[in-house]
Amino acid sequence: MTRPLEGLKVLDLSRYIAGPHCGMVLGDLGADVVKVERPQLGDDVRSFQPQAGGESLYFLMFNRNKWGMTLDFRNPEAQALLRRLAGQADVLIENFRPGTMERMGCGWGALHAINPRLVMARISGYGQATSLANQPCFDGITQASSGLMDLTGEPDRSPMLAGSYLVDYSTALYACIGILAALQKRQLTGEGQMVDVSLMGSAASLLVTAIPEYAMKGIPVTRAGNRDHYTAPANAFRAKDGRWILIQAGNEALFPRFTDMIGRPELLDDPRFSTLAARMQNVEAAEALVADWVESLTSDEVVAHLREAEIPCARIATIREVVQNPYMREAGNIIEVEHPTAGTVTMSGVVIKMGEPARVVPSPLLGQHTDAVLAGWLKLSPSEIAALKEAHVV
Amino acid sequence: MTRPLEGLKVLDLSRYIAGPHCGMVLGDLGADVVKVERPQLGDDVRSFQPQAGGESLYFLMFNRNKWGMTLDFRNPEAQALLRRLAGQADVLIENFRPGTMERMGCGWGALHAINPRLVMARISGYGQATSLANQPCFDGITQASSGLMDLTGEPDRSPMLAGSYLVDYSTALYACIGILAALQKRQLTGEGQMVDVSLMGSAASLLVTAIPEYAMKGIPVTRAGNRDHYTAPANAFRAKDGRWILIQAGNEALFPRFTDMIGRPELLDDPRFSTLAARMQNVEAAEALVADWVESLTSDEVVAHLREAEIPCARIATIREVVQNPYMREAGNIIEVEHPTAGTVTMSGVVIKMGEPARVVPSPLLGQHTDAVLAGWLKLSPSEIAALKEAHVV
Repeated sequence: MTRPLEGLKVLDLSRYIAGPHCGMVLGDLGADVVKVERPQLGDDVRSFQPQAGGESLYFLMFNRNKWGMTLDFRNPEAQALLRRLAGQADVLIENFRPGTMERMGCGWGALHAINPRLVMARISGYGQATSLANQPCFDGITQASSGLMDLTGEPDRSPMLAGSYLVDYSTALYACIGILAALQKRQLTGEGQMVDVSLMGSAASLLVTAIPEYAMKGIPVTRAGNRDHYTAPANAFRAKDGRWILIQAGNEALFPRFTDMIGRPELLDDPRFSTLAARMQNVEAAEALVADWVESLTSDEVVAHLREAEIPCARIATIREVVQNPYMREAGNIIEVEHPTAGTVTMSGVVIKMGEPARVVPSPLLGQHTDAVLAGWLKLSPSEIAALKEAHVV
Repeated sequence: MTRPLEGLKVLDLSRYIAGPHCGMVLGDLGADVVKVERPQLGDDVRSFQPQAGGESLYFLMFNRNKWGMTLDFRNPEAQALLRRLAGQADVLIENFRPGTMERMGCGWGALHAINPRLVMARISGYGQATSLANQPCFDGITQASSGLMDLTGEPDRSPMLAGSYLVDYSTALYACIGILAALQKRQLTGEGQMVDVSLMGSAASLLVTAIPEYAMKGIPVTRAGNRDHYTAPANAFRAKDGRWILIQAGNEALFPRFTDMIGRPELLDDPRFSTLAARMQNVEAAEALVADWVESLTSDEVVAHLREAEIPCARIATIREVVQNPYMREAGNIIEVEHPTAGTVTMSGVVIKMGEPARVVPSPLLGQHTDAVLAGWLKLSPSEIAALKEAHVV
């Protein structure tokens, strides 16, 4: 059975996460993705610690299911070669600072003229043509300047980054959607499009209701620890054994299950707790009902009772517990892949499941497939490839 | 100019965020998305606070660019109607608990038999066919049980939720990618597919290198406040005026810019700071260099100097500052839409920019387009529609 994107040719010029994760998701779905890196050093993240068999775990995580070739982006002959490769591609992904592709003679106008069917996904901090386009940017910068940090952490302590590069990831996924939507349209028009996705635009989309709450109601939403913003009681609670448990018993369906479970159905008649709106007004009191119950039991007991009552809950897991959780492998959420130098690589699985087992090839060594791509995509002869290497073009 | 997904017919049966955001992104790209809700109450989030003109901001945020109809999911006649609607659709999105669609006579087998071209996106907490499939689940539960919470917050305090439903959002985006990939394949085969995306699978994909670090190197990665995990110095620092600033001066390109900027280029010869690996070993000392410099200046001065030196930085913004930031409107990251009862709704913009201005229609009132959809999709007559309403089917 063929995977959904088999035959799709993708050039991935990107570095770090926001571009590479986009290319990887396309590769997970069967596309032929060629990661293009500068010679010698490659993607910056190849030098990051920790490493296994000379490969950084960071690079291994975001570049599986790709072929790898090198190309000296600063060399005019290499730039010409890049235009030839773009002539053969369906999709090009890049996350250079805006203007860089243009300086390489590979802006949208140039590439569209060479290959009108090409879809070009451009990922940047602030968008290709805004007043801040040239500002340097990383995930954390957008978490800070989009309000996401101000929404994360405890009210009386400093704002916090999420423990994941959530803006990079979401930007990668939006870019992927833009690419596939452009391909959908290409079926009708025969022409590709440019897709412009920014970290800041993506971050703004993750703010749930904070923007309208401030703009329309004047409510200055800010961080509230682990307290849910929309339902109550829903928070993290500490059991007798010291373990934290996240419990969501706040909406209209769940709170009655909770009061039944603890044998206090009369609480539903208490005007402080009888409706969601009332519980939101009396959130400390509503949470105290849960806290008192939780602290009298071990975390195992708490989870067992809540599962029985079908109330969403989870012991807050450490990474060790996650890696050892049999469900994660059963569901394909954690997988193992054999890499030629790094050995067995344990990583997150293919997220989108579409009716056949995931196929995963480990990330390429730097330049591993340079010859194969030049021969396969551009039909270059071995002597032509040797000459390009001799001249340090690739 | 037509938008990339114009003409695509989508039935969105989903509630909360993970499904609705998926439908909304398709609608943002031009698809005809019909949100189907139970009569009277509709999507649970319609009752959430705060509200404007009788509409919850939560509902307004995740259901723009959709038509709205009602249908009593528990009524067999309504279930038959749903099968007829699925017969006319390209895509169906649902995030009921696994098994619910089957009990409605609308499982994958039934719908595929009715409409072999249909793509069915199924969003759940743990996947459609795993041992945990029936467990109730929300975003926070997966943040807790995937390790994301353990990676967020300060080392000596409790694990933290991110200030955004990042798992819901990313699951929505993965589902969207799966749908578009299935449509890509349908061009070749004429047949739709089922797309199975889970919150837990999505959460696992957001752990950066934590899984391989523990599994391959035995490193129990955990939260580290605002300290970056891969580069140093990169953290949040407090200026003389008390404002927090996130500064990322950690990688090999950026640290020399920082030492030049503060007039101490000799630090590059200090073995504690000369390489990224050395700075990671001496992270407190590396951060102290930045902290000492930052605390001597106001946040305005700090940001001005760092911008000049092209070092990524941002004052950690409050939501008020984000809403008032002129860049956000210039870039289309915050937009205004007129709603018939809520008035001017301020919300995040269309993230994926594809060469034409975004078009945004506000979220539907409950059942606003029931008649139009039944007439348009199923060619029902006014009297047939009246009979369905009379019988409380819609």
